[in-house]
Amino acid sequence: MITRAEILDIKSLATKQGREEQGAFIAEGEKLVGEIRNSSLRIRRILQTKPIFSEGEIVSAKEMERISQLKTANSVLAVVELPSHSLAQAQPDKNLVLALDRVQNPGNLGTIIRLADWFGISDIVCSEDSADCFNPKVVQATMGAILRVRVHYTNLPEWLAAQHNTKIYGTFLEGENIYSAQLDKAGVIVMGNEGQGISAEVAKSVSHKLLIPPYPTDRCGSESLNVAVATAVICSEFRRR
Amino acid sequence: MITRAEILDIKSLATKQGREEQGAFIAEGEKLVGEIRNSSLRIRRILQTKPIFSEGEIVSAKEMERISQLKTANSVLAVVELPSHSLAQAQPDKNLVLALDRVQNPGNLGTIIRLADWFGISDIVCSEDSADCFNPKVVQATMGAILRVRVHYTNLPEWLAAQHNTKIYGTFLEGENIYSAQLDKAGVIVMGNEGQGISAEVAKSVSHKLLIPPYPTDRCGSESLNVAVATAVICSEFRRR
Repeated sequence: MITRAEILDIKSLATKQGREEQGAFIAEGEKLVGEIRNSSLRIRRILQTKPIFSEGEIVSAKEMERISQLKTANSVLAVVELPSHSLAQAQPDKNLVLALDRVQNPGNLGTIIRLADWFGISDIVCSEDSADCFNPKVVQATMGAILRVRVHYTNLPEWLAAQHNTKIYGTFLEGENIYSAQLDKAGVIVMGNEGQGISAEVAKSVSHKLLIPPYPTDRCGSESLNVAVATAVICSEFRRR
Repeated sequence: MITRAEILDIKSLATKQGREEQGAFIAEGEKLVGEIRNSSLRIRRILQTKPIFSEGEIVSAKEMERISQLKTANSVLAVVELPSHSLAQAQPDKNLVLALDRVQNPGNLGTIIRLADWFGISDIVCSEDSADCFNPKVVQATMGAILRVRVHYTNLPEWLAAQHNTKIYGTFLEGENIYSAQLDKAGVIVMGNEGQGISAEVAKSVSHKLLIPPYPTDRCGSESLNVAVATAVICSEFRRR
């Protein structure tokens, strides 16, 4: 049994304000909720339309539709406590760390978290005005990777400026061909906003400018790649070496 | 002045049936419509909320909102005739061709068309049950690349089976590490459905099985990459050589 007030509380977790107020986010789908049950995250409540998890409460399909953030509601939804990570865990002097400068699209952020997981990148440092990683669309797009990758929000220009003796890579039209550039096993890879790229303030900290060359290199076609796609190509290049 | 019947006609272009009946699709935004005006495509009508293009008709913001497929309506929308391409233009014995086996998500298809353009791939051959490339979400996600890349729909297993003496690449868990595999300058790169990957019927035609290795290779993290991301990593590897 779920009350009208509880439904409203859960629905409000779709907004950043609601998540901050309640200290929780929602995750949908049997696979994802199952993964969360086996993780260190704390689940507050599982709602399901049929018996799936022993601790889950049964709700009607209509109720599930009301609380679901998906176009087609799944059979299970969990309310999960927001984890807290320390930014000190991001150590770009020892490992590769991704930095996102105002990435806005939830689908792009989710896809980037998923590919970071694939390429063994455990920390992503985002500017404060980036999309929120516990937005339901992001959570779903990560396909569970949100449980393994730590996403931090901070004043990105300041954080980057404080990374002394650390290589900071970013893509620019005048950058060096990434296929022949020297790439290290540690450092920060900065990716910029979908429309505007890397901001001038962040660009100041970039020590190594890179370019993913189009093919053929002199043709005039698309002007840019989707940010998640560019991140994938860059991470693949770093890990290939 | 735009009539109620005309608004309904334009709105119906959001569906595949509507596009097929009217032989047209819609494109939104000053940049995209500008590019279409400079392309070989035929524009039937341009609607705009302020004077942008000389041949455009002025409509109210309210009317634009009604016909727009975007969350936030743009100031210009064009009704454009569907182009027709011959599948014979896809020549995998001479060039790289992408083949999509039931890629369903419009955002993924749009992103793949955009990256194909970046990596100089002019033809994409899709199974008949793939997302439609003139779906408004696909058109917008291509960022204009739909004007340069030819997207064909056909019986994919049959088309692949008919490509004799052609290398057909596909990604499989048991595939060869793509970073060390021999990759040719011509052939077909097959990408599969978001959830199920490459179908058994299509897999029969794959002559070269590849794998994008996770990092580190023995870790247990994400089980897969988003299809657009995987396509990007593969195309980048083919073009790097």
